[in-house]
Amino acid sequence: MPFKLTILGCDSAIPTVDKQQTAQLLNINERFFLIDCGENTQVQLRKYQLSFQRISHVLISHLHGDHYYGLIGLITSMHLLGRNKGLHIYAHEPLKEIINVQLSASNTNLNYPLFFHILPKNEEKVLFKDDNVEISNFLLDHTIDCSGFLFREISSQRKIIKEKIDKYKIPLDKIDEIKNGANYINENNQIIDNKELTTYISNLHSYAYCSDTRLSSRIASIITNVDVLYHETTFSEELVERAIETGHSTTKDAANIAKEANVKKLLIGHYSKRYKNLNILLEESKQYFNNSYLTKEGDVFDFNTF
Amino acid sequence: MPFKLTILGCDSAIPTVDKQQTAQLLNINERFFLIDCGENTQVQLRKYQLSFQRISHVLISHLHGDHYYGLIGLITSMHLLGRNKGLHIYAHEPLKEIINVQLSASNTNLNYPLFFHILPKNEEKVLFKDDNVEISNFLLDHTIDCSGFLFREISSQRKIIKEKIDKYKIPLDKIDEIKNGANYINENNQIIDNKELTTYISNLHSYAYCSDTRLSSRIASIITNVDVLYHETTFSEELVERAIETGHSTTKDAANIAKEANVKKLLIGHYSKRYKNLNILLEESKQYFNNSYLTKEGDVFDFNTF
Repeated sequence: MPFKLTILGCDSAIPTVDKQQTAQLLNINERFFLIDCGENTQVQLRKYQLSFQRISHVLISHLHGDHYYGLIGLITSMHLLGRNKGLHIYAHEPLKEIINVQLSASNTNLNYPLFFHILPKNEEKVLFKDDNVEISNFLLDHTIDCSGFLFREISSQRKIIKEKIDKYKIPLDKIDEIKNGANYINENNQIIDNKELTTYISNLHSYAYCSDTRLSSRIASIITNVDVLYHETTFSEELVERAIETGHSTTKDAANIAKEANVKKLLIGHYSKRYKNLNILLEESKQYFNNSYLTKEGDVFDFNTF
Repeated sequence: MPFKLTILGCDSAIPTVDKQQTAQLLNINERFFLIDCGENTQVQLRKYQLSFQRISHVLISHLHGDHYYGLIGLITSMHLLGRNKGLHIYAHEPLKEIINVQLSASNTNLNYPLFFHILPKNEEKVLFKDDNVEISNFLLDHTIDCSGFLFREISSQRKIIKEKIDKYKIPLDKIDEIKNGANYINENNQIIDNKELTTYISNLHSYAYCSDTRLSSRIASIITNVDVLYHETTFSEELVERAIETGHSTTKDAANIAKEANVKKLLIGHYSKRYKNLNILLEESKQYFNNSYLTKEGDVFDFNTF
């Protein structure tokens, strides 16, 4: 199943000509989730030839501008380009008014429905579930209400055990039924229980997104064993006090969470402008968690090959 | 006196990688006025190395997103970069709430004062005046409340008539006093009235900004004799019905206003995306008003040499 992450922006606070604010597009089986939406995200989507009309869900981690100022422009452009498909927005409550006052000021009645889902401030729950993915929020420790997001691929099917096909001489035309949970009834009307024939599909993808947050050890237990963790590293290790003060993490913080949560790979981002050479941050992170990777604008991480 | 206009963006509706929405920076004697502020304007200012901390006044013509979605990001970045100098915003009333709900959602107390001046919906008046410039609004005919802006350089000084210096043998050290309005008292204690010695300074610059609007003939009488008129030309002449329907102007409309108002030069902009070759619009405009010029992102019009 396609499970592909595109980095549209990975810088912090103030945008510049070559530094875009946070936004990521996650393609799960051709359903497109936009995670955060800094100013100019709609142009970033165009730059990387990603159709923004295909985005069905937008998840906004928190209401600092570098994570959402591009949303109203995206919503407006979707409207002007004739969208009629609904758009689901998951965000903290004030965003609803922020959008509404702006639509009202321009006398705009969107020609598509906007479904607003309020992120809980003190609760962690499943936000969305379909046949392919379950998305839940978890609480981050920032200077204002802030959510992490956990995406877990799910499958209603089970994986058939090859040896059992031979053992019970299961005909090919029964395989799909069994994958979907049916028992197998052989020629002698003997019932072979599905549980004996199948196992869970084990190679389902998962992704956790953590930005912005102070070091928060409780995150590790929530995101245990995910394939890929994106964790902000605004600062290098030596600026740990500045990180705590501003509600952010260091490279060491992110790497330690990755290690504790036993994730396979760590992506870092949300870099402070002070770092001209990001390899300093990468090398620091690798000291504590070797499978660390920088994110850069335009990077695509295909979870099937990454 | 410096009187210089920089085009930061001059396209309409939906931004793309190479099409920036409306924003202009007007430098009048080193006081910087930002006129409209489409998404990503703060980055455009950086791109053209224009310090946005020097902007003291922002004028927003109307509350369609392509004219103001970049303002909240600019305000936020000014704050994050430590501004303490006040910022004056002239806009229609709803913008005040739009800014406030966003600052409130991010728990931001700006470290500089924001002075909000509500643009009148049905009145034309002087918005701002100092020793160098007088700025007034005028009503445009768009789909929502929309203001044009008229900038007139003013001078408290008068121009001395050279022949009078010779005639009355005025010493050099009296010239400044006379320029500032004093009468001249000669060696015989005879008083020569200032009005005889001086005239108004006639080469003061002026600029009128009209975006967005339908053809509105009454504008011509308001902006009579300005040096430079910027007037939107969203459409070519043949799409006049579409222009009326959407509250915009054609090339012919803008050119006719320029002619009727006896302006010296016409700048056109706010182009519909359908025009890949903007020279079509320019040539049309020139048919009716020869001194027509295209605006392009990055253009600088220095009124002292233009």
